[in-house]
Amino acid sequence: MPSPLLLDVKMESIGKFSRFGAALAGRPVIDVNDGGDHPPVFHGVRYALVWKPAAELFRRLPDLEVLFSVGAGVDHVFACDAVPDVPIVRFVDPSLTGPMSEWVVLQCLMHLRQQRQYDGQQRAHVWHDRPQAWADEITVGIMGMGVLGRDAARKLGALGFRVIGWSRSGKPADGSLDGLAMHGAAELDVFLGKSDFLVGLLPLTAETRGIYNRSLFSKLRRGSQDGIAAPVFINAGRGGSQVEADIVACLEDGTLGGVSLDVFETEPLPDTSPLWDFDRAILTPHVAAASDMEALGRYVAAQIARHEAGEALENVVDRAAGY
Amino acid sequence: MPSPLLLDVKMESIGKFSRFGAALAGRPVIDVNDGGDHPPVFHGVRYALVWKPAAELFRRLPDLEVLFSVGAGVDHVFACDAVPDVPIVRFVDPSLTGPMSEWVVLQCLMHLRQQRQYDGQQRAHVWHDRPQAWADEITVGIMGMGVLGRDAARKLGALGFRVIGWSRSGKPADGSLDGLAMHGAAELDVFLGKSDFLVGLLPLTAETRGIYNRSLFSKLRRGSQDGIAAPVFINAGRGGSQVEADIVACLEDGTLGGVSLDVFETEPLPDTSPLWDFDRAILTPHVAAASDMEALGRYVAAQIARHEAGEALENVVDRAAGY
Repeated sequence: MPSPLLLDVKMESIGKFSRFGAALAGRPVIDVNDGGDHPPVFHGVRYALVWKPAAELFRRLPDLEVLFSVGAGVDHVFACDAVPDVPIVRFVDPSLTGPMSEWVVLQCLMHLRQQRQYDGQQRAHVWHDRPQAWADEITVGIMGMGVLGRDAARKLGALGFRVIGWSRSGKPADGSLDGLAMHGAAELDVFLGKSDFLVGLLPLTAETRGIYNRSLFSKLRRGSQDGIAAPVFINAGRGGSQVEADIVACLEDGTLGGVSLDVFETEPLPDTSPLWDFDRAILTPHVAAASDMEALGRYVAAQIARHEAGEALENVVDRAAGY
Repeated sequence: MPSPLLLDVKMESIGKFSRFGAALAGRPVIDVNDGGDHPPVFHGVRYALVWKPAAELFRRLPDLEVLFSVGAGVDHVFACDAVPDVPIVRFVDPSLTGPMSEWVVLQCLMHLRQQRQYDGQQRAHVWHDRPQAWADEITVGIMGMGVLGRDAARKLGALGFRVIGWSRSGKPADGSLDGLAMHGAAELDVFLGKSDFLVGLLPLTAETRGIYNRSLFSKLRRGSQDGIAAPVFINAGRGGSQVEADIVACLEDGTLGGVSLDVFETEPLPDTSPLWDFDRAILTPHVAAASDMEALGRYVAAQIARHEAGEALENVVDRAAGY
């Protein structure tokens, strides 16, 4: 009898949930949010899959061996008390990477091709061609060069953008990104000074909380690209990394020409946020890359199989780094 | 003394015009629209670069050897009387291909990721995540697999879309598109039946005038992709190939879920067109790929150099095919 997988995934919407169980191939699932009676302690439960779990959950899992996160980020786990000393496995999968890159490329193209300005012209029935820069005149700087950042870099490069990367290590990301200029922690200002568009794909940690603030935005490249309202800030990482009061002020005074935000300090974004009403702010409700439950089920099943075969788990969080 | 290049390029806006002359490296330019006095006949002028030239222009060029088009299309040339029996050279250049592919990828991503729906939610301050299909559930069918179609296919493929192509010959486009399913003239219905998004990159000829009509739209794939308002028609070729009354009616009755149009039967699009006011119609004012005059100058100079060295001109129009 396989150990059950405990679920605590308070997501507003879980797509294709029914396919999740099927992908687990027979392993029982205990959903602590199903409204049923559950014991105070889950003896014998060795695996749990969580998204923003209840603070006391981990005290109820004395036999936990592996903790899985529904998403690529694990800040929601470290926001809890008493995180157990077991491997924490992030969800890394083409079903997350592909949609994230689609969103990043879409946002970069919308700013490059002045889509919001053309949208406004359409509403006003105005036929007017705007000066237009080329993609290879725009440098997209990506902060966070993990699996998501590297894939976005490849696809932005295929579209013709110049792409540079920043990560703590500053090391080249992987062999397929030969020629990508990488900058390390100490070279942040140099990196920012080259970036017309800044793409945030950082995890939320103590070091990255509030990192996207006025001081950082003011260091972005202020070039003279035809027609483009630059610099542009695009965040698909975590809302806790951005200072929204600074974003609003920087849009108002021109420090930022435009933004695309999929994540926010508070989600859902409060109705009172001034961000909603900026034409140059493109907002989406944390949908850049939603975890696909069927793919997640397959992933969890595969990782548990590795674990039970004595093989190393993949995508294990570095607890010191926090991601 | 090199033969002058005669210009008749009635474009609303010619970007970077001053750089055009520099790129010609000393060859004199005669701009027939500069308001100056010009002779009735331009003796000794062997080269002309035109965009929608005056009907009588060619009668004034008895010594013409090569005719250059400002854009990739040459329908504006064949709309004239007395087109001289000289090689007509289309403009084929990365400066056109790259921006065209940006526009096509941007439009496909906007429809895939339901950007207009999220724009509406933003205006209403609504936080709501919509069901979302993956790119690899969407087949983009491209009509016209020349240089522009092949480049768009490559870039859409890199983003994860399934891509199929249609051309008169039905031949594989080039080696870099191994695996791309191609359909020929006789297989149009099969091709349409597989296409969720239809991208039009056809030249305007007698055969393609009005080809994008209700009959064609009704043959597109009507699948059940999560959230996507398909099928979608995207035209960056020529407005004369589309029947706008049919597009309006098909948007109204659901035969089309959305459109993106950069070209129109009449340009500028008349203020009275119902197309302006469809939220599911994304309109841009023939800006998908504007000819860059510096690049065009270099291109014309290079082709003239080939011609004068006795080498074959490139991208010469097939007069029987009309493109």
